[in-house]
Amino acid sequence: MGEPTRLLIHGATGRMGRALLRLCAERDDCRVVGAVSSRSPAQRVVDGIPHFSAAELGGAPGFDVAIDFSLPGGFDAILAACLARDSALVSGTTGLSEAQQAALRQAGERIGVLWAANFSLGVALLEELVERAAAALHGWDCDIVEMHHTRKLDAPSGTALALGAAAQREGAEPRYSSVRAGDIVGEHLVQFATAGERIELVHRAGNRDIFARGALHAALALARRGAGAYRLRDMLA
Amino acid sequence: MGEPTRLLIHGATGRMGRALLRLCAERDDCRVVGAVSSRSPAQRVVDGIPHFSAAELGGAPGFDVAIDFSLPGGFDAILAACLARDSALVSGTTGLSEAQQAALRQAGERIGVLWAANFSLGVALLEELVERAAAALHGWDCDIVEMHHTRKLDAPSGTALALGAAAQREGAEPRYSSVRAGDIVGEHLVQFATAGERIELVHRAGNRDIFARGALHAALALARRGAGAYRLRDMLA
Amino acid sequence: MGEPTRLLIHGATGRMGRALLRLCAERDDCRVVGAVSSRSPAQRVVDGIPHFSAAELGGAPGFDVAIDFSLPGGFDAILAACLARDSALVSGTTGLSEAQQAALRQAGERIGVLWAANFSLGVALLEELVERAAAALHGWDCDIVEMHHTRKLDAPSGTALALGAAAQREGAEPRYSSVRAGDIVGEHLVQFATAGERIELVHRAGNRDIFARGALHAALALARRGAGAYRLRDMLA
Amino acid sequence: MGEPTRLLIHGATGRMGRALLRLCAERDDCRVVGAVSSRSPAQRVVDGIPHFSAAELGGAPGFDVAIDFSLPGGFDAILAACLARDSALVSGTTGLSEAQQAALRQAGERIGVLWAANFSLGVALLEELVERAAAALHGWDCDIVEMHHTRKLDAPSGTALALGAAAQREGAEPRYSSVRAGDIVGEHLVQFATAGERIELVHRAGNRDIFARGALHAALALARRGAGAYRLRDMLA
Repeated sequence: MGEPTRLLIHGATGRMGRALLRLCAERDDCRVVGAVSSRSPAQRVVDGIPHFSAAELGGAPGFDVAIDFSLPGGFDAILAACLARDSALVSGTTGLSEAQQAALRQAGERIGVLWAANFSLGVALLEELVERAAAALHGWDCDIVEMHHTRKLDAPSGTALALGAAAQREGAEPRYSSVRAGDIVGEHLVQFATAGERIELVHRAGNRDIFARGALHAALALARRGAGAYRLRDMLA
Repeated sequence: MGEPTRLLIHGATGRMGRALLRLCAERDDCRVVGAVSSRSPAQRVVDGIPHFSAAELGGAPGFDVAIDFSLPGGFDAILAACLARDSALVSGTTGLSEAQQAALRQAGERIGVLWAANFSLGVALLEELVERAAAALHGWDCDIVEMHHTRKLDAPSGTALALGAAAQREGAEPRYSSVRAGDIVGEHLVQFATAGERIELVHRAGNRDIFARGALHAALALARRGAGAYRLRDMLA
Repeated sequence: MGEPTRLLIHGATGRMGRALLRLCAERDDCRVVGAVSSRSPAQRVVDGIPHFSAAELGGAPGFDVAIDFSLPGGFDAILAACLARDSALVSGTTGLSEAQQAALRQAGERIGVLWAANFSLGVALLEELVERAAAALHGWDCDIVEMHHTRKLDAPSGTALALGAAAQREGAEPRYSSVRAGDIVGEHLVQFATAGERIELVHRAGNRDIFARGALHAALALARRGAGAYRLRDMLA
Repeated sequence: MGEPTRLLIHGATGRMGRALLRLCAERDDCRVVGAVSSRSPAQRVVDGIPHFSAAELGGAPGFDVAIDFSLPGGFDAILAACLARDSALVSGTTGLSEAQQAALRQAGERIGVLWAANFSLGVALLEELVERAAAALHGWDCDIVEMHHTRKLDAPSGTALALGAAAQREGAEPRYSSVRAGDIVGEHLVQFATAGERIELVHRAGNRDIFARGALHAALALARRGAGAYRLRDMLA
């Protein structure tokens, strides 16, 4: 299996960052060589992992891939660090400016970069399946029903909209229904219906660890690819 | 099992009337003694069943229960015929005036009467289960998702609204989602959700015969009851 | 749209044959030029369509595609008729001998042929989606739950087994559950599950017309293809 | 709302015991006056709650209800402690001997006692709904499909069997299907099917806290009841 992939976790004290540190500790094929967070007061070692403050990012050791779940304010620094070291970047940071998005795309000409809004591998696959189904099922009605916990304010969910975009065909506009109930982590149903038959494509998230697992999967896969701007879907087998 | 129940089918040439004639022909526990329709030109016998025009209703033979799926214009006559013969009345005629509804309730003091918007026994039971669940599940969110064919114009469906009324509790308003797709006969999901668990109560209609079957079931059950204004739910075992 | 495709229906008095005649009558892009059945006493015209007995098959007019839902005993004749006319053949006849299957494959070198056990387009697509999902989801558990009416004696259904074959990967054997209840036409759920997330791929058949519709779709698509032995999946857009 | 209910947690270091301590800490209507565990070395106070070893149970302060999730070996002591104080007992301890079960029933003549295998309120309600549906739906087929994580070895689940018992009617035996996949916490579908329609009653557990929540609900409800041997269902509103 060779050397473990060396990871830098950017945004290490956030929910995703902590989940990533926990998951990496259970695996042999990757090793966290640096955990960076804006809150870290100064370099220190916790559970064998060197933690850095954002200001110390330049002094972090060499790494193969950075995984970034932080805030737009720190994005330029981590992208620059990846370019400086010829390392790949997986980012789930939301709220990037147009300029930051353009910089990320451009970085894809020199290093591997991957940005996604939803790091569930199941959702990435569902998107691909929906695109294929929509292409094959001319004239079938398409409806998307999504369910999330009551604290989620936006509707339809970003994932539902992405699935809807994948389902879009000429003259066929998917319609959305949103349910907000209990503490549902996230469920998406894409239904195709015609006279006498129906296809239902469903994803159910049971907990939020799947996002960290998917980001880790993407990072390890990206480490084996060349330069390019990838989608999570491209990292499916 | 005794004598078969004698039925009068009012609205015999409509979709429900024809389904009722077909279903009765397959059974031993009931016998259609008259099929009445406004279109019938004059009395004649078809497949052994005497057909009457609406004008001839007075001359129809004695019956135990009338099943009425017709139009408001013919309702007063069939109700009068039932009262005159001390026979029961099952009606699914929609669009009754306030006065007609009041007359029906009042008739319940002398004969058995039952009116319903949806004659599916499964839906009738679902309504009862939803009422029970709502009473037991304080503080759970309640959502109703209904799916019907694309020719259905109203939304939410009348059945969804009836289920919502059954689910209503102080401070808990059910929310509705409607999907119109393909040729779906009718599906209703009532979901109750709280932290960590969910209950889903679902009815799926596969074809429209279930409404005729439910009306027939109601008629045979009503024939064994005394006077009263009943709901379909009251005819469940 | 050009000339309507000329169809020969072989097995015209069976359930599928009759459904095909009914569906073709509603369409402009195809025309039934001959309806062949072993029961037809002799040539006659019904609703504008010439009917032939099996013995008269040689005298049938030219056609672009034959659709065959008959019995193994008549298969050699219809295959020979297609080869003689350079016409395509869509067949759903079950119980073909090994020799007949080999003859069909060989015919594919000269004309277009397509055989399928299940002509639902939705199921054909589902099979493709399941194959893709299985390839992408390493290590996810795969379970197949199928539901059919109580008269269906075999379990798992042939379609479930075909879906299972599509889901098979090294070291991952799908497991089957079968439910026999009511008059369910046919439902298939393929579930992929891993820690924290699940994907469900479902097909629901509401009535049996979908099989005739799928066969007709296949015939019209096959008429535009060259020689070859095709699967229904190959006729999806 | 009056005085908070005083609880004794028996089996405080087990998974359920810890979840109960955590949930009680967030509520105002109950107060843990003692946490008993066989592992506790001796009395001490943790987060304001007095912990006792099993040997010290006799010296625990007065309480309204004991909640017991421990092992059969400690059951006699906690039952005796409840009887001595006229306090109620909620128990989910499995593996009780016949004699212990009889002693519990007999205790119900003097104090409130409640034992359950599954403390989900949703499942308790589902059982009641299934019993009602089975009584109303003569001749409908009944099937139970349950899904659990791959570490669960028994099948069908105990909950599925309890639902099946609730669905049982003369001449109608529910059938079971079991799926073991991923880390599914627990899902139970009870389906009733007849010609043309189906009812599906489903419970989905998202996490294991629901069992501690249900036990706590039962304890608070039991504190307001008189003597008796209750089921969890009896504590639904």
